[in-house]
Amino acid sequence: MMLSFRSFAASAAWLGLMLNNAPSFGDEGMWLFNNPPLQHLKKQYGFEPTPAWLEHVQKSSVRFNSGGSGSFVSANGLVMTNHHVAADDLQKLSSPEKNYLIDGFHARKREDELKCKGLELNVLQSIRDVTADVTGAVKPGLSAADAFKARQAKIAEIEAGAADPARGIRADVVTLYQGGQYHLYTFKKYTDIRLVFAPEKQAAFFGGDPDNFEFPRYDLDVAFFRVYENNQPLQTEHYLKWSPNGSQDGELVFVSGHPGRTSRKNTMAELEYLRDTGFPYLLQRLNRLEVLLSAYADQSEDNRAKAQDDLFGIQNSRKARNGGLGGLLDPQLMARKADEEKRLKAFIAQSTDPEIQKAAQAFAIIAQAEEKREDLAEDLTLLEFGSGFNCTLFSIARTLARAAEELPKPSGERLSEFGDARLDSLKFQLFTDSPIYEDYEILKLADGLTFLATSFGGDDELVQKVLAGKSPRERAFELVSGTKLKDVAVRQKLFAGGKAALASAQDPMIALAQLVDPKAREVRKQYESEVEEPKRQAHAALAKARYAMDGASTYPDATFTLRLAFGTVKGYTVSGVKVPPFTQMGGMFTRAAEHKFIPPFDLPKRWLDRKDKLNLQTPFNFVCTADIIGGNSGSPVINKQGEVVGLIFDGNIQSLVLDFIYDQSIARAVSVDSRAITEALRSMYTADELLKELTGKP
Amino acid sequence: MMLSFRSFAASAAWLGLMLNNAPSFGDEGMWLFNNPPLQHLKKQYGFEPTPAWLEHVQKSSVRFNSGGSGSFVSANGLVMTNHHVAADDLQKLSSPEKNYLIDGFHARKREDELKCKGLELNVLQSIRDVTADVTGAVKPGLSAADAFKARQAKIAEIEAGAADPARGIRADVVTLYQGGQYHLYTFKKYTDIRLVFAPEKQAAFFGGDPDNFEFPRYDLDVAFFRVYENNQPLQTEHYLKWSPNGSQDGELVFVSGHPGRTSRKNTMAELEYLRDTGFPYLLQRLNRLEVLLSAYADQSEDNRAKAQDDLFGIQNSRKARNGGLGGLLDPQLMARKADEEKRLKAFIAQSTDPEIQKAAQAFAIIAQAEEKREDLAEDLTLLEFGSGFNCTLFSIARTLARAAEELPKPSGERLSEFGDARLDSLKFQLFTDSPIYEDYEILKLADGLTFLATSFGGDDELVQKVLAGKSPRERAFELVSGTKLKDVAVRQKLFAGGKAALASAQDPMIALAQLVDPKAREVRKQYESEVEEPKRQAHAALAKARYAMDGASTYPDATFTLRLAFGTVKGYTVSGVKVPPFTQMGGMFTRAAEHKFIPPFDLPKRWLDRKDKLNLQTPFNFVCTADIIGGNSGSPVINKQGEVVGLIFDGNIQSLVLDFIYDQSIARAVSVDSRAITEALRSMYTADELLKELTGKP
Repeated sequence: MMLSFRSFAASAAWLGLMLNNAPSFGDEGMWLFNNPPLQHLKKQYGFEPTPAWLEHVQKSSVRFNSGGSGSFVSANGLVMTNHHVAADDLQKLSSPEKNYLIDGFHARKREDELKCKGLELNVLQSIRDVTADVTGAVKPGLSAADAFKARQAKIAEIEAGAADPARGIRADVVTLYQGGQYHLYTFKKYTDIRLVFAPEKQAAFFGGDPDNFEFPRYDLDVAFFRVYENNQPLQTEHYLKWSPNGSQDGELVFVSGHPGRTSRKNTMAELEYLRDTGFPYLLQRLNRLEVLLSAYADQSEDNRAKAQDDLFGIQNSRKARNGGLGGLLDPQLMARKADEEKRLKAFIAQSTDPEIQKAAQAFAIIAQAEEKREDLAEDLTLLEFGSGFNCTLFSIARTLARAAEELPKPSGERLSEFGDARLDSLKFQLFTDSPIYEDYEILKLADGLTFLATSFGGDDELVQKVLAGKSPRERAFELVSGTKLKDVAVRQKLFAGGKAALASAQDPMIALAQLVDPKAREVRKQYESEVEEPKRQAHAALAKARYAMDGASTYPDATFTLRLAFGTVKGYTVSGVKVPPFTQMGGMFTRAAEHKFIPPFDLPKRWLDRKDKLNLQTPFNFVCTADIIGGNSGSPVINKQGEVVGLIFDGNIQSLVLDFIYDQSIARAVSVDSRAITEALRSMYTADELLKELTGKP
Repeated sequence: MMLSFRSFAASAAWLGLMLNNAPSFGDEGMWLFNNPPLQHLKKQYGFEPTPAWLEHVQKSSVRFNSGGSGSFVSANGLVMTNHHVAADDLQKLSSPEKNYLIDGFHARKREDELKCKGLELNVLQSIRDVTADVTGAVKPGLSAADAFKARQAKIAEIEAGAADPARGIRADVVTLYQGGQYHLYTFKKYTDIRLVFAPEKQAAFFGGDPDNFEFPRYDLDVAFFRVYENNQPLQTEHYLKWSPNGSQDGELVFVSGHPGRTSRKNTMAELEYLRDTGFPYLLQRLNRLEVLLSAYADQSEDNRAKAQDDLFGIQNSRKARNGGLGGLLDPQLMARKADEEKRLKAFIAQSTDPEIQKAAQAFAIIAQAEEKREDLAEDLTLLEFGSGFNCTLFSIARTLARAAEELPKPSGERLSEFGDARLDSLKFQLFTDSPIYEDYEILKLADGLTFLATSFGGDDELVQKVLAGKSPRERAFELVSGTKLKDVAVRQKLFAGGKAALASAQDPMIALAQLVDPKAREVRKQYESEVEEPKRQAHAALAKARYAMDGASTYPDATFTLRLAFGTVKGYTVSGVKVPPFTQMGGMFTRAAEHKFIPPFDLPKRWLDRKDKLNLQTPFNFVCTADIIGGNSGSPVINKQGEVVGLIFDGNIQSLVLDFIYDQSIARAVSVDSRAITEALRSMYTADELLKELTGKP
């Protein structure tokens, strides 16, 4: 599956900065809705989306705050996404008696739809360019730290002016072209989201980790939710109609969704950092967690139920990151990137424009920032990103501890996630009553504390304070069993009560968060002012140079904001073997039999029992050339008429280099065919009401 | 399972050095057969083994060169060990048609016994103290590098004088008390070893990784081999008789086997190195490999068959090392170690003996050596231990490349593993035709090259030479598919032909080994002369001081040499819960049912079908207080009469700190009861001939 995209870790850890693309070609690009590649589409495909087409698609597109994409597919607020985007919510709704993530769910009547815990959906309403406003706030001559602060304050001010919590309007200033542009995005925010349908995990994720990122493929990776407002299904004018005929080989298709992050405008210094430090260090943590959680899950079915969603995310990231690292270690790919950089350097060197000439030093500034980034990586990961305290209760404790510090300040001076415009979403998360399993928390926290102790050394002063004379395991037990934060009411009380309430609560987990916080804040501040800020300014200079070199027609690196991609339904050839673009539903049974139905190649009982009801020739999954990446999971694939022909759920293994460079020859996006979804709903699940709502036909 | 002990990595990577134990107490100790704790046994248990008793047990004990222990259990060369010690051999004997590791094996007739590939067994014949000879070769004033060389030359000379390849006599000078003493061990070496019996893996390793290192337990972790000489079963005077009655709660028992390594005499600096660097770095590699091989194994049954033995070893090490690291991160354990050190320092400080006073600086010398060790760890791991080129074909290529360099030199000047006395064993390994799977080799090598590139950085000169302009995956493919070393005849020709033959072969894997070798040798030499040698000398000084402090009655740290341990069959109490010492065979069925027979809690079909034949009350596994560690796997547990009452196969999770410190309260050795072995052979496997051979009864 494509990596889902958890927004904070990503924005804090990964945002580099850069602007503008070399002149686009072929099907490349994750385009802004306010700057779509109209001329290119017209020239290449003879099709030019109208403003109304674009607005309709934009307002039919849905962002999952849990890290994926989706779309409205009925006038009654029905939202389609992937099973694997829904996994987190299926997990939270499950109990020891009912495992919806494994067994699936189907509300045949509205009143059976299940309200999700902590799920927020955003629908983009408007975009406004606020670049001048934001960059104008940074007066020349400011130190990096002050520049960062001034910009943050301006952003908070703009967001606060545009947000309207009473009307459910959320406002985010998004950084595009790595600081080249700032746009104000306003969203309609929905928080009453109910689960309608999910198939069994064996059908949604048939082939498991072995088949993940592979093609040919046979997955019904779909789930449906419904948005409610005032306790009624949302009535929406903008939703995508269902195509009865799916797509054809060679057909132009569009993908509207939220690619999480790309690094295509990275300089060589940044790519080398990722290759030699960033990815290996991340993979080391992923390997560690995969082993920890697999061993835990193997102990019992109960354990597996608790860990499965986290484990899936970790395995998925591990496979994706290994693919990306493989790309960075491919000398040919790196040579192409080096050529791009050489071309830009040459352009700058021969320029007579003093503004452009300034960009010459940007490469060295970025390289220096990357060295600082390497120095900070361990502290940042362990303390600020919380890998050293890896459990839900610590996150809750930290949020409460920081809220007490931050909320008394003016909005613009707070840590960005505590700004007025974002506070509603933060509280929504904090007060959700998702299940917290004590043994699982202890397992993860003990491992986090071990990671902390072995990273800093057992004799480190902070480590000794954190462990308080206990072993990691004993300390984790003490903290998790001692904290009262499992109780939502306690969290609400402490949040409302601020510092005084925290002090009198004497909660051990809050005390730990407070103990670590000064150092965590310090390293975050260092990272923001010595890595992010210099890079942002340097990339802005490079963006100007690139603009002068190649002109305006371009798209920014992915940032988990809404984008439009396009491409052709098309097979590919790998090692001399032709891979056709479509699979059929019958292929799933063949592949299961080849693997003797041993997990993860087993099939749900329903699918075995009802096989003869199914039209085995129905197209199941298909590939196209659209330019997507993790975060696009759950994006609708639509035809020129704006009808749903498929549902993005993955990229093939060759697409994992798209982080760094687009490739049209063998990299492919992988989708569920709309015809497979309707066939499965009809023949497997007899979901007549849902079918009727989707297709408009009884 | 207890960690099996692969001798080279261990001896090169881990040997620290130190001497003498604080006065022993309780059931502590892994005693030398030439210095058993006779007085202590007499005092505590009223039993004093006679010299004949000791000689008989010694000569009935067998060392598996693959890293475990075993014993002769019949006059016809029948050897008993664990299924998990046999796993490597079961794997090598398997084919796509016959998976003996999973399905078990039973030769009902001698002619059906299967000859193993590359398995060497050693039986200790004699021990001679050569300390004076070895230390006398190091003249005062020599540099560390020269001291190391002089000692190695003397050791090679002693070994060559004692070895007698024609009579199958192998001679090793073993380092004890970390350099305090050197003993010459002569072994009878056997290389025609045939597989007689192994149960299904589900019975041998019921509960898999989740139950590994746990108790209560239900594993039939046993296998039988037969030693042949001149194509006939070995006739041996020394073998252990079978006890029909097993052992009782509270009974004194002995364990004769080969504990691989302990670090009990480590200084605080060494323990801190292990805590902060050694164990975390090792665990990082284990996690990496566990994820790599698990993902590969999950792709198909074929893959699982190829990777299962490696995967088992890795998971087992990971669990053991996590336990050990947990101990090092336990402030109470570290405080006890610090107290021990303080006591020794105080003794040295108040001593008026100038010889003892010298030891005062040993702590600083060791601490400095540990800093150097940390500096070298990455180079040593990647280049000399081969983690950067992790595959069988590279090991073969390196052995051939080094043989061509080393063999022309006098034996005493060669790298130690190429000394005349060891050459026979080396050739036996090199020319074995164990299966080599190309895809599996590529998988591991590509990962190794990735590890190398990300550790040194993609721009590193050596990395670029190694990768030769390719990505790790492409390069691994090119090397594995291009080499001719899969063919044993090619290896033999190249070994015989030396440098000239290597040069004309133009084999890409040999070229790679030769490319890396200068740097690998350099780091090995640095490690030997700047870490091992100063530590050896410092530890010898500490050993003298400890001897002066506590007297002679002591045992050295484990070194994969034969040791005698003793203890009591005894349950324990953990978190207030009493764990009785014995389980029963019926408990296995109960536990399987509790886990709904989901792997690894499934049972072989035979066990389900024949459950009613089995006496479910038969004692199955039991615990005792004997002081054991990885490498002891397969050791016989014997009573005062020298009869087999059990078979060591594991320690409980609380025993994983035994690396550093003995604990009698809750740490336990875990064994298969002799009664379970006979009951299973009778009722499950109808192995009448084997039973008769073991028990002497029809």
